[in-house]
Amino acid sequence: MSTRAYIRDLQANQNLDGVFAIQNAQLGMTKNGKPFLKCLLADKTGRTPARMWSITEDHFATLPTDGFVWAAGSTQPYQGEMQIIVQDIRAHEPTDNELKDLLPCTENDIDQMFSEVLSLLQSLEHPAIKSLADRYLEDGDLMGKFCQAPAAMTMHHAYLGGLLEHTLSLMKGADALLPLYPQLNRDIVLMGLFLHDLGKCQELTWLQGFGYSQDGQLVGHIGRGAILLDAKAKACEDEELGEAALKVPDAILQVLTHIIFSHHGIPEYGALKVPATPEAIFISNLDNLDAKMNMSIAETRPTTPKPNANGLFTEKIWALDTKLFKPDPTTVPDGSA
Amino acid sequence: MSTRAYIRDLQANQNLDGVFAIQNAQLGMTKNGKPFLKCLLADKTGRTPARMWSITEDHFATLPTDGFVWAAGSTQPYQGEMQIIVQDIRAHEPTDNELKDLLPCTENDIDQMFSEVLSLLQSLEHPAIKSLADRYLEDGDLMGKFCQAPAAMTMHHAYLGGLLEHTLSLMKGADALLPLYPQLNRDIVLMGLFLHDLGKCQELTWLQGFGYSQDGQLVGHIGRGAILLDAKAKACEDEELGEAALKVPDAILQVLTHIIFSHHGIPEYGALKVPATPEAIFISNLDNLDAKMNMSIAETRPTTPKPNANGLFTEKIWALDTKLFKPDPTTVPDGSA
Amino acid sequence: MSTRAYIRDLQANQNLDGVFAIQNAQLGMTKNGKPFLKCLLADKTGRTPARMWSITEDHFATLPTDGFVWAAGSTQPYQGEMQIIVQDIRAHEPTDNELKDLLPCTENDIDQMFSEVLSLLQSLEHPAIKSLADRYLEDGDLMGKFCQAPAAMTMHHAYLGGLLEHTLSLMKGADALLPLYPQLNRDIVLMGLFLHDLGKCQELTWLQGFGYSQDGQLVGHIGRGAILLDAKAKACEDEELGEAALKVPDAILQVLTHIIFSHHGIPEYGALKVPATPEAIFISNLDNLDAKMNMSIAETRPTTPKPNANGLFTEKIWALDTKLFKPDPTTVPDGSA
Amino acid sequence: MSTRAYIRDLQANQNLDGVFAIQNAQLGMTKNGKPFLKCLLADKTGRTPARMWSITEDHFATLPTDGFVWAAGSTQPYQGEMQIIVQDIRAHEPTDNELKDLLPCTENDIDQMFSEVLSLLQSLEHPAIKSLADRYLEDGDLMGKFCQAPAAMTMHHAYLGGLLEHTLSLMKGADALLPLYPQLNRDIVLMGLFLHDLGKCQELTWLQGFGYSQDGQLVGHIGRGAILLDAKAKACEDEELGEAALKVPDAILQVLTHIIFSHHGIPEYGALKVPATPEAIFISNLDNLDAKMNMSIAETRPTTPKPNANGLFTEKIWALDTKLFKPDPTTVPDGSA
Amino acid sequence: MSTRAYIRDLQANQNLDGVFAIQNAQLGMTKNGKPFLKCLLADKTGRTPARMWSITEDHFATLPTDGFVWAAGSTQPYQGEMQIIVQDIRAHEPTDNELKDLLPCTENDIDQMFSEVLSLLQSLEHPAIKSLADRYLEDGDLMGKFCQAPAAMTMHHAYLGGLLEHTLSLMKGADALLPLYPQLNRDIVLMGLFLHDLGKCQELTWLQGFGYSQDGQLVGHIGRGAILLDAKAKACEDEELGEAALKVPDAILQVLTHIIFSHHGIPEYGALKVPATPEAIFISNLDNLDAKMNMSIAETRPTTPKPNANGLFTEKIWALDTKLFKPDPTTVPDGSA
Amino acid sequence: MSTRAYIRDLQANQNLDGVFAIQNAQLGMTKNGKPFLKCLLADKTGRTPARMWSITEDHFATLPTDGFVWAAGSTQPYQGEMQIIVQDIRAHEPTDNELKDLLPCTENDIDQMFSEVLSLLQSLEHPAIKSLADRYLEDGDLMGKFCQAPAAMTMHHAYLGGLLEHTLSLMKGADALLPLYPQLNRDIVLMGLFLHDLGKCQELTWLQGFGYSQDGQLVGHIGRGAILLDAKAKACEDEELGEAALKVPDAILQVLTHIIFSHHGIPEYGALKVPATPEAIFISNLDNLDAKMNMSIAETRPTTPKPNANGLFTEKIWALDTKLFKPDPTTVPDGSA
Repeated sequence: MSTRAYIRDLQANQNLDGVFAIQNAQLGMTKNGKPFLKCLLADKTGRTPARMWSITEDHFATLPTDGFVWAAGSTQPYQGEMQIIVQDIRAHEPTDNELKDLLPCTENDIDQMFSEVLSLLQSLEHPAIKSLADRYLEDGDLMGKFCQAPAAMTMHHAYLGGLLEHTLSLMKGADALLPLYPQLNRDIVLMGLFLHDLGKCQELTWLQGFGYSQDGQLVGHIGRGAILLDAKAKACEDEELGEAALKVPDAILQVLTHIIFSHHGIPEYGALKVPATPEAIFISNLDNLDAKMNMSIAETRPTTPKPNANGLFTEKIWALDTKLFKPDPTTVPDGSA
Repeated sequence: MSTRAYIRDLQANQNLDGVFAIQNAQLGMTKNGKPFLKCLLADKTGRTPARMWSITEDHFATLPTDGFVWAAGSTQPYQGEMQIIVQDIRAHEPTDNELKDLLPCTENDIDQMFSEVLSLLQSLEHPAIKSLADRYLEDGDLMGKFCQAPAAMTMHHAYLGGLLEHTLSLMKGADALLPLYPQLNRDIVLMGLFLHDLGKCQELTWLQGFGYSQDGQLVGHIGRGAILLDAKAKACEDEELGEAALKVPDAILQVLTHIIFSHHGIPEYGALKVPATPEAIFISNLDNLDAKMNMSIAETRPTTPKPNANGLFTEKIWALDTKLFKPDPTTVPDGSA
Repeated sequence: MSTRAYIRDLQANQNLDGVFAIQNAQLGMTKNGKPFLKCLLADKTGRTPARMWSITEDHFATLPTDGFVWAAGSTQPYQGEMQIIVQDIRAHEPTDNELKDLLPCTENDIDQMFSEVLSLLQSLEHPAIKSLADRYLEDGDLMGKFCQAPAAMTMHHAYLGGLLEHTLSLMKGADALLPLYPQLNRDIVLMGLFLHDLGKCQELTWLQGFGYSQDGQLVGHIGRGAILLDAKAKACEDEELGEAALKVPDAILQVLTHIIFSHHGIPEYGALKVPATPEAIFISNLDNLDAKMNMSIAETRPTTPKPNANGLFTEKIWALDTKLFKPDPTTVPDGSA
Repeated sequence: MSTRAYIRDLQANQNLDGVFAIQNAQLGMTKNGKPFLKCLLADKTGRTPARMWSITEDHFATLPTDGFVWAAGSTQPYQGEMQIIVQDIRAHEPTDNELKDLLPCTENDIDQMFSEVLSLLQSLEHPAIKSLADRYLEDGDLMGKFCQAPAAMTMHHAYLGGLLEHTLSLMKGADALLPLYPQLNRDIVLMGLFLHDLGKCQELTWLQGFGYSQDGQLVGHIGRGAILLDAKAKACEDEELGEAALKVPDAILQVLTHIIFSHHGIPEYGALKVPATPEAIFISNLDNLDAKMNMSIAETRPTTPKPNANGLFTEKIWALDTKLFKPDPTTVPDGSA
Repeated sequence: MSTRAYIRDLQANQNLDGVFAIQNAQLGMTKNGKPFLKCLLADKTGRTPARMWSITEDHFATLPTDGFVWAAGSTQPYQGEMQIIVQDIRAHEPTDNELKDLLPCTENDIDQMFSEVLSLLQSLEHPAIKSLADRYLEDGDLMGKFCQAPAAMTMHHAYLGGLLEHTLSLMKGADALLPLYPQLNRDIVLMGLFLHDLGKCQELTWLQGFGYSQDGQLVGHIGRGAILLDAKAKACEDEELGEAALKVPDAILQVLTHIIFSHHGIPEYGALKVPATPEAIFISNLDNLDAKMNMSIAETRPTTPKPNANGLFTEKIWALDTKLFKPDPTTVPDGSA
Repeated sequence: MSTRAYIRDLQANQNLDGVFAIQNAQLGMTKNGKPFLKCLLADKTGRTPARMWSITEDHFATLPTDGFVWAAGSTQPYQGEMQIIVQDIRAHEPTDNELKDLLPCTENDIDQMFSEVLSLLQSLEHPAIKSLADRYLEDGDLMGKFCQAPAAMTMHHAYLGGLLEHTLSLMKGADALLPLYPQLNRDIVLMGLFLHDLGKCQELTWLQGFGYSQDGQLVGHIGRGAILLDAKAKACEDEELGEAALKVPDAILQVLTHIIFSHHGIPEYGALKVPATPEAIFISNLDNLDAKMNMSIAETRPTTPKPNANGLFTEKIWALDTKLFKPDPTTVPDGSA
């Protein structure tokens, strides 16, 4: 894909070929009764409509509705957008490198973030909680997804690596705030934060665009996270661990389960239980704070400024129930608005 | 306890001795500075205040705050109630027979009801669902609790055997209604109903009066039921089952888990998921109907009429958000109200 | 209409003539300043855009905005739909047979369903309730509408005969479930179900497409149903009935009125009263269950599968607050999603 | 009752005899096992506990639980109240004059208020609406109740004559405001206000203390008012009226029915329909304003100041969701609070 | 602008030039890659799409995105609307007279309305409240805005002079109703009504189309009104006033502040405080009534009938949560619907 | 008060004299018709009923209903409490030292906390924000109240010094978390936190027990805080400041005002505006977190354990909508519950 420009940067009448995410591929019919392809082509910087004016039904059948393709064609301005007129297209399994260009991704280093999470877990003191952390860390498949998954479909941290970034931000935030609340058990807080969203590894899909899995729709990350925790806790007693085997005490397991079930705070926001221990209350509130900061900063003061984002206020952001005032107020001269 | 009257039937100045549930035992202080016992004594028919005017702190320390005692004394009318003046009291572990007299209990035969549940489960057809049912049935401890637990603390089926009675009523109701909705999968519906409240075996305590367990408060019957289902489904693959071992297909397990998580219908009523399959919608609505019928019939047309329940309307019942009109309307003559 | 295909089955460049429902007829203006007709043409299988490129204002004035027409023309593919280019069009009063092809209709036999309702009403025992039922049954105009009306504009049973189908389904469901709740009065339940939605005969219009009447918007089916019941109950005392005249006892009339006013369950869903007798609670809950089963089955497992309905989940259904999982879970192989 | 003081004015150790409302009469049991009467005795100025220390069960059985009695005895201070020690008591049917002293009553002249309502109705212009008003006015039983009924159990205008007072206040308020909104039809507004609460004549009972009737609980004043309107409108067509018979046009009848069904404004406050004509919106809002003014003035600036009502703020008034600041703010000197 | 027709009256193929409000001006790109202007042109009677097919980026940069322009061109029917094809366009600062034609405006005389407000304020009696009124009246800038501002962006009184019209309507309505509630302090009510919405002078912008100012979004009219009141009250103590200087008593200032903070009635509608004095309750309810009457009359019985507004019912009006029945019901013949 | 025990520690039949808070002083009447004093006597450790059996009305009139007294008497056990039988009592103005023993107070050092707040304010960088901070700091009366006021009546930080403790906790927490969100303006965050609750200095009263002032009930701390900020900002421009005078830029003042109006997050919790800048969102969420941590820690793991607080769960805490699990879960052995 080295030779093509990002979608954000397309110019009129530009030739291009490369790998794209394809979305909502449909077969249309021209006024002359000829089939044509209509779809969106996307990469991590945006998406734009595309048309292929001559395509057979058989050719169309080889393309994914939502997935990845290699395509060649040229741009044509249409209603203010750069539409792509496709000459050639075929299904394509992207390499990991290509994937990075196709899906939005954290701006931070994934390996670096994961090693910070590891450090924080290594600072745990309670032996059973440490053992439980090890059961998760040794599950390579899960940890692979943990490093790759977004934290949400939309809203906050909705990019590859978002789950890891959000989890690390919470663990670091907790470490900074805990000295103010010495009555809290640090092991429970840090382990609870590490676990609280891990069910998203099964709830979300991201390899063909962000979506909910069947398990996500029927069980969800909160239910799946709790079921997973039960299995990992049982694994701490496995004979295979030899002398290292030890039981996670009931109250610890119940409170960690409770943290997963309660971290959304209230039933209307998806909690099965209202937070009922100081550690659960702390986690639920800190989670909410970090999600809202990620959302509001991304909308008002993003690393890469949004094109065409004029005005001092954003559009209404439904999750925050308001328009946001964008500038740092100390930079706004009197009379500017 | 054979020699004492039920609390509902106590007369003035009556001697009595026997086993009681004791509730809220406290040490008071008379105006003269002498300690005395104040508590409630209860059986399955009601409860009444009791006092023991001379008791040492050491004696008091041997009594449970909430639990069971043997006590002897006599009745004294006080403010319209029959207060018990205790002469002697000691902690007591009730026999199963005594327990029956101490806690409210279903009026139906528990063995008979359980065998009806068994029959319905034996009519299941899908091999993996049958295997899953067997994993539950072979768990004697769980089935013992299933036959004994109430279905709730208050509200509906709040008596020993209530969980079994409610579950059977739902399974029979489903069997009667399903012919109207042939598109539903009967195996999923009946298995879902059998499972949906089983977590109450761990959520509630009933041996020392009805209450919530620590697990009930932190995890709850919905969460515990789903975690339990996962373990039972894994047990279907156990090598120990030999040739009978088989995997519960993913979609079946997800939908049954979904039924547990969704059967309360909406988050405000405790659902983690909104019912999202026809079978889950059916179960959630039928569950609600049966609970409300049990509640409203118990309040308006109980098997044993309530004493002092005059008037055509009940007091306001908060769970139904209204007072209930008690009589069968075809029995009310004009001009009676 | 024998010679034309259903709209669902139209092919490109096909000539057609016949009777259609016309919707939203408007006079447009071409870029050359000439008037043209734009409208939708519909039958019971669907609807599609239509254009007539030369039409006078006088001709247009003879057409209903929403109603029925005879039209001739041919199909032209446009943006993936089969648009109809009209050559000739005129207003048309459809015969009963034509109407059947123009509006969605129950798949069950209306006469058969009505006779099942009759049977159930004949099984009533209380003489005043039987007399009341007779007053409704002898109102031919009302019974004609009862057999024809949809049960709703959209949502559940939104087709001709839907009200009858829904009412019968409830009466049969009640008959199946009532043995579980012997404390309920069967006459009240069955009569209440027969009555509860009858006001929809005046609330809805269906002969020119489904809509709300003026009475429906200002008074509604709940208010109208209660006012109608009062008149029918007074008719039971008519001198014209001779010896058969008898008064409906007050409590029976009040409870049946209460059932109409309360069957939507809570004020937010349109109830004037919260259900306050066991029979009213039973009816409200069973009504809700049947409506939701009709809705969810139609969306997931319809008799005639929907074209282009791929995917394991439906779109979000607002009345159920969720997407629905469509397959019978026992038919989904592992790894399919 | 001329010889006894009002309950508000009782002094210690005062002999008294006269007619009282009795409330919640119960048979207690002394510590010696002797029965005694415990009840509240009330008049329009308040109520106080009463005891009769020797009473037989047979004597007790002749007394109403809630109703009226003649009693003789003396006062005894007890816990800051003037308790009445009864020497003699018997059931008593109060005369109209006595009733005036027993139930709280409007401070305005009922005849004068009713004649003001009549004047306003005589100013109506539309013949069918005038005829409809006549049908109500000629119903002597209904008009008798209209002049006597309270407008509510508690909250606003909760006294005899309250319904008439509230209705007149609204009709006069409408007459004062309508010049600002000349687009409204005055006949519809005034007739709608006259009708809107008339169902309370059947919803409430007041002769034995304020309460809800069976009809009130099952049907309610909104439903009953609409059913009544239908009957009165049909009566306008009665052959007995001879040439004066005329049909109330459909739209007028529907809108008046709509006004009754919608005057509570939103379903949560008991409306079956949301107000959907300018006249209905006007009535709903004016009704709400008058109710709240009556409530808030009674709590802050009553004609007869409340004893022991110190402080600048009232207790929290749930229907207004706040404590009220009582003084006219122009009378509060700085530094007084 | 004398020579051009209002937008509501445009005919096909009509030349026009004059001053317009321009909205949402954007630079589009034709399929040939040439820039073109797309925007809406508006006056007080409506708005319509406009295009200028050849425009340079430099020319475009001189035009406001939302503001005012002089434009010349001709009309072209397109999709049922009269689109304007622009030949020439330039930014333009409208005169006051032009502004009257560009923004919707009250139909009443502004000077006349303001003098009625003055009269009512002159009838105040309390010296400190009169002084406070004078502090507002002598603020020429504020009074200028008070006479010009709309009362809202959309919904009710959303036109120039709307704030004045709404305020005067409330003050006159209060004057008409107050005789029914003599316990209320008239000075507080009239002054409270004069003040309650004055913060809208800073919350809204209207000179370039109706919108919210930065202050409106961050502080709002309720907060700003209260802050302004504090400053005006302090100004009553200014030494510059000489002998006329006097302190507004604390309770008066607190209650007026409370009226501003509470006039929206409940927090969900923007109130910071729930109305807690009779005067505050009166104002909040009367404000609501007047707003709803303005809204509902404008939708059903406007001075200038809306074109294409067929049917007896309006579209659903979200702020009233219903469709409105439009006709005066006494004018609807039976059988018309 | 040096010679008397705290109320928490009273023993039976103990003589005592000293200073107490008196609450709800009332004049009762004995059965013999003699007046007596009934009240509660309190100190920072609790409160208990008191009676003085012979008191004249004149003596009673010298006592505050709620305030402070010197009293002498002795204890008498009554219904499990240590009632105080008063021999002598008179009104008393407590010294600052006495006050410390009478009202609950922070356990931290007030001077130390205030100097930490000062340090954080001295670290501000923006000159106008620094000047604004100085205007507050130089207001000795306000700062005195800031150091003394509770942060709430009940709920969180409901003790003397609580406002200062809560404010400092938030400023320190922000300082710890801000490195995670470098896009936020630290000056705005710290100044916003310093200001956000300052209106509580006028909303609450604490010298005669905790309560709401008249200003608190009518205006409230949010409204008062915003009005106060406006005055302090204007003071930054005072000529008296000489060269140091400078204007607080509009956007800064608006955003700080917005932070005050929005810090409760949603209207239902008292916010006039929804937080609409990243800094406002941060403050609102951190405020909520700190309040909940203070509440939940005080209930579960208080510095001074509560007497009689058995059980693993607290009573239901309404502000948290749940019972809390009290122990650190790592300290609970299996099988303990």
